Amino acid sequence: MANTYHWKFKVSGRIWLDCNEHSFLGLGKVELLKKIQELGSLRQAAQAMEMSYRQAWENIKKINTCAPEPMVILKRGGLNGGIAELTPFALKTIQDFEKLNETFQAFLVTQSNILNND
Amino acid sequence: MANTYHWKFKVSGRIWLDCNEHSFLGLGKVELLKKIQELGSLRQAAQAMEMSYRQAWENIKKINTCAPEPMVILKRGGLNGGIAELTPFALKTIQDFEKLNETFQAFLVTQSNILNND
Repeated sequence: MANTYHWKFKVSGRIWLDCNEHSFLGLGKVELLKKIQELGSLRQAAQAMEMSYRQAWENIKKINTCAPEPMVILKRGGLNGGIAELTPFALKTIQDFEKLNETFQAFLVTQSNILNND
Repeated sequence: MANTYHWKFKVSGRIWLDCNEHSFLGLGKVELLKKIQELGSLRQAAQAMEMSYRQAWENIKKINTCAPEPMVILKRGGLNGGIAELTPFALKTIQDFEKLNETFQAFLVTQSNILNND
């Protein structure tokens, strides 16, 4: 029916990747991974995200366990008591997720337009 | 890069409608509205959803306040101490949301295929 909506609804949402039926990677974990890459340290990445070290460590453990290849390599030593590095597989997965999320944002805009012009 | 994913990720997600920058209607509230339509009673709908009457009432108040037209009409009286009815606008909005959600589910499948065959 035309003009049923005098007033606008916006379609919102979020997406994530599942592995083995569990949520595996969404915007939050992608942000954590990018902070690890930027700072080279899980402890500093956790601080930057206002997350406890334990929580960050458990997130990374979950990601590494569920992914088909390790995504974060933790090494002892270094100035900050440990170096954290992303694998090429992690970088590729982040890139894929961000591209997917851009496609999803475009989908939301398109669907909002369809809904409001219906 | 081809064959980076030896193993499958699934793209998952959820969508909802916002009104005035607030979440307004998602799968849960659509289910509540459909129960109201089916049972003709907010109290019975709340029971069927294992939700408190207060919570159901607050959900409906939020929906009615934010929508451009009322969506649920509550009348005193009737066998169950009150009759609840959906407006044609509510029925149209439910139909629109369910169509939108089907499109979204298809989007998730397509994106999962793209991600895993990349």
